[in-house]
Amino acid sequence: MAKILTLTLNPALDLTVRVAQLQPGEVNRSQALLTHAAGKGINVAQVLADLGHKLTVSGFLGEDNQQPFNALFARRGFVDAFIRVPGEIRSNIKLAEDDGRVTDVNGPGPLVSEFAQQALIDKIDQIAASHDAVVVAGSLPRGVSAQWLHHLLLRLKAMGLKVILDTSGEALKQGLSAGPWLIKPNTEELSDALSCDISSLESQVAAASRLQAQGVEHVVISQGADGVNWFSHGQALQALPPKVSVASTVGAGDSLLAGMLHGLLSGHTPEQTVRTATAIAAMAVTQIGFGISDAAHLATLESGVRVRSLTEE
Amino acid sequence: MAKILTLTLNPALDLTVRVAQLQPGEVNRSQALLTHAAGKGINVAQVLADLGHKLTVSGFLGEDNQQPFNALFARRGFVDAFIRVPGEIRSNIKLAEDDGRVTDVNGPGPLVSEFAQQALIDKIDQIAASHDAVVVAGSLPRGVSAQWLHHLLLRLKAMGLKVILDTSGEALKQGLSAGPWLIKPNTEELSDALSCDISSLESQVAAASRLQAQGVEHVVISQGADGVNWFSHGQALQALPPKVSVASTVGAGDSLLAGMLHGLLSGHTPEQTVRTATAIAAMAVTQIGFGISDAAHLATLESGVRVRSLTEE
Repeated sequence: MAKILTLTLNPALDLTVRVAQLQPGEVNRSQALLTHAAGKGINVAQVLADLGHKLTVSGFLGEDNQQPFNALFARRGFVDAFIRVPGEIRSNIKLAEDDGRVTDVNGPGPLVSEFAQQALIDKIDQIAASHDAVVVAGSLPRGVSAQWLHHLLLRLKAMGLKVILDTSGEALKQGLSAGPWLIKPNTEELSDALSCDISSLESQVAAASRLQAQGVEHVVISQGADGVNWFSHGQALQALPPKVSVASTVGAGDSLLAGMLHGLLSGHTPEQTVRTATAIAAMAVTQIGFGISDAAHLATLESGVRVRSLTEE
Repeated sequence: MAKILTLTLNPALDLTVRVAQLQPGEVNRSQALLTHAAGKGINVAQVLADLGHKLTVSGFLGEDNQQPFNALFARRGFVDAFIRVPGEIRSNIKLAEDDGRVTDVNGPGPLVSEFAQQALIDKIDQIAASHDAVVVAGSLPRGVSAQWLHHLLLRLKAMGLKVILDTSGEALKQGLSAGPWLIKPNTEELSDALSCDISSLESQVAAASRLQAQGVEHVVISQGADGVNWFSHGQALQALPPKVSVASTVGAGDSLLAGMLHGLLSGHTPEQTVRTATAIAAMAVTQIGFGISDAAHLATLESGVRVRSLTEE
């Protein structure tokens, strides 16, 4: 069992609203409304907790509507190291209709002051070193620059921590230059960050080799239903998930990341690591939520994952 | 200054989301999201507090997302006598587009158990008698019958309290038979409850006379921009608001009710009572929110209200 810190710099309150059929301009009655404390780092933490690890969660949290987050942290036994900031956590509303159509309305989050950014640095200086790894996941809130993220990652690395980064855009670009230990972009996110097309295997091999030279030990490229390519230490593995019926892809990428970190920290073989991680992600896809609710189902999915070497052709 | 209890049996968390143009089936970015603790009784309480009265607020409150309500009660100095129930307060989402179109998505509230209903009765038995009036406002939550409301109103009356009822449908119908002191339906709500058309003045006079025979001292019929007809003690007054530009009608009816109660409890003349109440409602219409933010503006609106007798023609 490892002790893991996850940082969610821009958490979100997910409101999933079910309506028979959305009538714009009218009064619609929703059949159900579910509120979830969300955000990539918090999602990753939940899957890691399901896998038996001890979690500390941190980042910035708008104080005006933090209650569902506090309740989640208490329920899951997470150590709460979030910095509270004035304002509301952003709400991401998902209007789900009976025919499967989903309309997303994503809100702006609070503006995070330099004072709060320094408070997070101070908190991390105080608590991070006692952890085995730190996951920095999700987008940046208003007020926080990609440059700040870069320095944060360098600071975490200097503390001897394994740093896992899962973000996109300018934040990924700046983050990569700090040389995190593990990244898990999808093909599009990595293409964007490197400003080059990495859809072919050759281009992925070349990109991974460049990233490894910068200090990125594990390059995990997620390709949804097309599986996972993992490049590390001159080794390249591909894992293809079994076919599953899709209930919701929410949390699938976070599940993959948690599974990879679990295998690596637990000393599993590379083949077992990517197999389990891919199965956990496939399991997330079969659920409205995510997480390891059924060990027997996970074992079945694991046996359906095909793992092959990408280098020994 | 009076001491007033308001009961909101089915509060709501209003989420107002601004989007440039709603694209169903797509990911929309909202420019702003405002969360408001709402519900008719809570709205009435806020306007009464603006008018200088002391408030106790009660009803049923889902405990999972009560934070904005607790913050409001603390900020306004309301005595909090709400019964907490398991589950989430319903969320009413208002998607407001730049062209003025508003799409409402109204959620279901928590199911209120018989145990919670008894807890509210016990609480009321304990605290209500020290108040000058009690306002029962808004819809009934799942699990609470119109019959239960009827008995609640009788119980409040038996304690010697002035009972003000503002609801609709079956709840208004059953509530009327308990003979509340004051009601404030709109034309449609009263027509529904009495199963007869009351759009003409003659039919309103007849309906008010029947209701007064049942013990309803004050029948206040709100007709939006067409003003207010108030029937009491053989007296009938009409108040017509000045023309105002409409920002939002949210809270206008609650403002009218608060204004009427304020005038009646303060011993103002009937003419002054309905004039001020109509001006407070007009003021609500000019705002995105409601409440008495500007005394000078209120005075201007008051002077623009036309009050006339409906009986001396």
